[in-house]
Amino acid sequence: MSAMKASDAASSLQLCRIMRPDDANIVGNVHGGNILKMIEEAGCIISTRHCNTQNEDRCLAVLVRVEKTEFLSPLFIGEVAHATAEITYTSPHSLEVQVKVMGENILTGAKKLVNRAVLWYVPCSLQNVDKIMEVPPIKFAAEQEEEGQKRYEAQKTARLKTKEMVEEVMPPPPKPEKHSVGFSQSSLIHLVGPSDCTLHDYVHGGVTMKLMDEVAGIVAARHCNTNIVTASVDAINFHRKIKKGCVVTVTGRLTFISNKSMEIEVVVDACSLVDTEKVSYRAVSAFFTFISLDKYGKAQSVPPLKVNGEDEQKRYDEGQARYLFNKAKRLAAKEAN
Amino acid sequence: MSAMKASDAASSLQLCRIMRPDDANIVGNVHGGNILKMIEEAGCIISTRHCNTQNEDRCLAVLVRVEKTEFLSPLFIGEVAHATAEITYTSPHSLEVQVKVMGENILTGAKKLVNRAVLWYVPCSLQNVDKIMEVPPIKFAAEQEEEGQKRYEAQKTARLKTKEMVEEVMPPPPKPEKHSVGFSQSSLIHLVGPSDCTLHDYVHGGVTMKLMDEVAGIVAARHCNTNIVTASVDAINFHRKIKKGCVVTVTGRLTFISNKSMEIEVVVDACSLVDTEKVSYRAVSAFFTFISLDKYGKAQSVPPLKVNGEDEQKRYDEGQARYLFNKAKRLAAKEAN
Amino acid sequence: MSAMKASDAASSLQLCRIMRPDDANIVGNVHGGNILKMIEEAGCIISTRHCNTQNEDRCLAVLVRVEKTEFLSPLFIGEVAHATAEITYTSPHSLEVQVKVMGENILTGAKKLVNRAVLWYVPCSLQNVDKIMEVPPIKFAAEQEEEGQKRYEAQKTARLKTKEMVEEVMPPPPKPEKHSVGFSQSSLIHLVGPSDCTLHDYVHGGVTMKLMDEVAGIVAARHCNTNIVTASVDAINFHRKIKKGCVVTVTGRLTFISNKSMEIEVVVDACSLVDTEKVSYRAVSAFFTFISLDKYGKAQSVPPLKVNGEDEQKRYDEGQARYLFNKAKRLAAKEAN
Repeated sequence: MSAMKASDAASSLQLCRIMRPDDANIVGNVHGGNILKMIEEAGCIISTRHCNTQNEDRCLAVLVRVEKTEFLSPLFIGEVAHATAEITYTSPHSLEVQVKVMGENILTGAKKLVNRAVLWYVPCSLQNVDKIMEVPPIKFAAEQEEEGQKRYEAQKTARLKTKEMVEEVMPPPPKPEKHSVGFSQSSLIHLVGPSDCTLHDYVHGGVTMKLMDEVAGIVAARHCNTNIVTASVDAINFHRKIKKGCVVTVTGRLTFISNKSMEIEVVVDACSLVDTEKVSYRAVSAFFTFISLDKYGKAQSVPPLKVNGEDEQKRYDEGQARYLFNKAKRLAAKEAN
Repeated sequence: MSAMKASDAASSLQLCRIMRPDDANIVGNVHGGNILKMIEEAGCIISTRHCNTQNEDRCLAVLVRVEKTEFLSPLFIGEVAHATAEITYTSPHSLEVQVKVMGENILTGAKKLVNRAVLWYVPCSLQNVDKIMEVPPIKFAAEQEEEGQKRYEAQKTARLKTKEMVEEVMPPPPKPEKHSVGFSQSSLIHLVGPSDCTLHDYVHGGVTMKLMDEVAGIVAARHCNTNIVTASVDAINFHRKIKKGCVVTVTGRLTFISNKSMEIEVVVDACSLVDTEKVSYRAVSAFFTFISLDKYGKAQSVPPLKVNGEDEQKRYDEGQARYLFNKAKRLAAKEAN
Repeated sequence: MSAMKASDAASSLQLCRIMRPDDANIVGNVHGGNILKMIEEAGCIISTRHCNTQNEDRCLAVLVRVEKTEFLSPLFIGEVAHATAEITYTSPHSLEVQVKVMGENILTGAKKLVNRAVLWYVPCSLQNVDKIMEVPPIKFAAEQEEEGQKRYEAQKTARLKTKEMVEEVMPPPPKPEKHSVGFSQSSLIHLVGPSDCTLHDYVHGGVTMKLMDEVAGIVAARHCNTNIVTASVDAINFHRKIKKGCVVTVTGRLTFISNKSMEIEVVVDACSLVDTEKVSYRAVSAFFTFISLDKYGKAQSVPPLKVNGEDEQKRYDEGQARYLFNKAKRLAAKEAN
């Protein structure tokens, strides 16, 4: 297989769409989940297209991981979202895609950076969805290649690590004292339909992320009773595929609250309605961070979380560690510039 | 088959969802139909899940009856609807499911009872949808069992009674002669929702064209009962704007048929539901051309149109003139190249 | 106002989207209407963006005309549609936009031309939608300018001509007397799509109920021109299943009106589009009760129903009997507590 140069690959793809009332909450803020869904559609098209340039067997690119991503500017109804995707690294069996989302106000001409995300895809055969195919290599400049290799190793390690922890279940909430974890814990159930799936009858990663954001938003709103928006999403690993006809249960609960942000753990469990085994399994899990906005759209304080019992305290401490780690990283990045 | 105790059965299921602009009318009241749809989704999941706990053959629960139900409180955009379903009785071939819908204002924390419904399901085999399967029995307390039995008998009687009556109420209008213009003429009405509209609350031209194509496709399929596709659309003029909250009536009828194509005239009439004047006006009109495809995707002959009366003949002749004009133009363009 | 050169204007815009099951008919052909909708979205974005580059007042571009357009190749589920829009002419108060739609099979890499359309937009002020704004001129090469001018004159003539004709073609049926049964009677047709259906390709009962509520709501609103909400639904029996690919006709008419409520009879008739027998059958029927709300959300009086002929009187009496029976039952239940 001869390698292509990065510039040869149909190296960039752009989606755009006007944001509509149903994409947003009552205050007009577009849900982060809709942006994640759009990002994933762009990633899926560019990587599926690339993986079919040399393989004999037809394949579809399946999302296996999204790196931590931040929502940098809010998007509103009537604005146009542009998602630009680019393949930035290829390993023998996976691709890294970077997607940038710009928001454009077509009335004023103003533009802003809304989100920048990194996604990992794996090509699965259309004949046999469990068969992973080879990725036609793209040749990047030496330095890029090396950095891509590092990112590849890092995400691989992270994916394997979370795979071990993932099966822990989220029990139903205890008695709900206001501002406790149980008070805002929420679940939604969704029956996977045809339009959630593509050609091989498995749910698009973007559809799953949209549901996760929806639940996390309900948890956040229940806790602070204000206009809330997605601020960032920690790395998400897609451990298992979800097939058409499954019922997915998406559950979210608060883990940690800083002065102005809420961390919400979201898990997705899938279960076939008709298969004989009928075992429910954990398909995805992730941490979403939301902030609360006042009526001028500025971040405001959030009521503190009432923590009950050892487990909640342990998760709180872990959340705090993640929060402090990310904060330190942001500061370091600022100083570096 | 050994009976389960009610408490053993996956005895309760909860769905929840945020109400969006498209779920409601222009004043913000969520349509009752969306609540009914959510109720049925909960009922379908819990009863399908239960019926597959013991059967060898996989099956889906099919709704056969909803008892009289009342809407007790209004639900608004931004509120969260929670539907809780529970199996409350099983007969050998049917299940009774009760669904309660609560509305939650996640900003104020206020909750209210929106609806409480009783649904009856019957399990149908996935292999053969006409085969009714056995329902794994659930054991209820003696008193509940007895009351459930009574409800079961009552609904059975009611269902049989209405089955006899059903053809009486509002008989379908006598169909005009096959392959006549009146035979395939079709109308749809659509209530303009927020997502159909631009920032200034008027319908996007693209939404109107989609509705027009939908009606034209139904007219074409009714005429020839085959796979039909849009071949071309004559120039469309948008004479008048259509505002949010209007009802549009889109009507299509055949005007002319050549050997392999059908010309369909489509008009769009709009009417405000809330204005006191309430004048219906013609907003758009156009001609769509469809062709009929055989199973290999090739264009095939279309049954000729039976034309009745002067008006239909006049429109037929005009359609033929348009057809011949376009054909001549196509040929001229070909020769020019 | 100084003119821009064509190459200066944000001269091209591209939308793309994967085609899903809901975009297509049961054979997999994407509906022409979805392609038209995508074309119009691209045209609306590029022309709104352009018209706001110089105007002081913010405006939206409104579609006024689509030239004759042909569907050159079919598009299928799983393929990616790319719509590229370009402004090709500007007059002082209108713009011509050309949109080309390419279909891409991302598995094989094959591309095809699906459609090429020409649309005319007019900028309307956001403050006052009836005020037409100026279009910032774009300077084209002399020859292009001249040809654009010709196309502009031709479409203007055509639009004026059809404006005169439009009320002629298919005149709206003469409306029955206000507040009579016939005045508010309404029908909608709906082509059953994949997302309406269960795993065995029959329509979910909840989808049917949603359509029934939609029609009943239109009937109620037509009768009283106010904000109306569903108050209750009588028992509904689902006599016959409805299969994917059917057309359902849902018809509603008023039967009885009490001081503050309206009873509406709704029937659902289903008909296969592809079966040769093509027998239409009654699938479901039910009675919906609606109430009219004033601007404070309180129930208000409803105009009385004008009853014509024996049949309507009979149905009115039956409706009254149901009303009185339910009222007596409610009172009895209240006293029992």
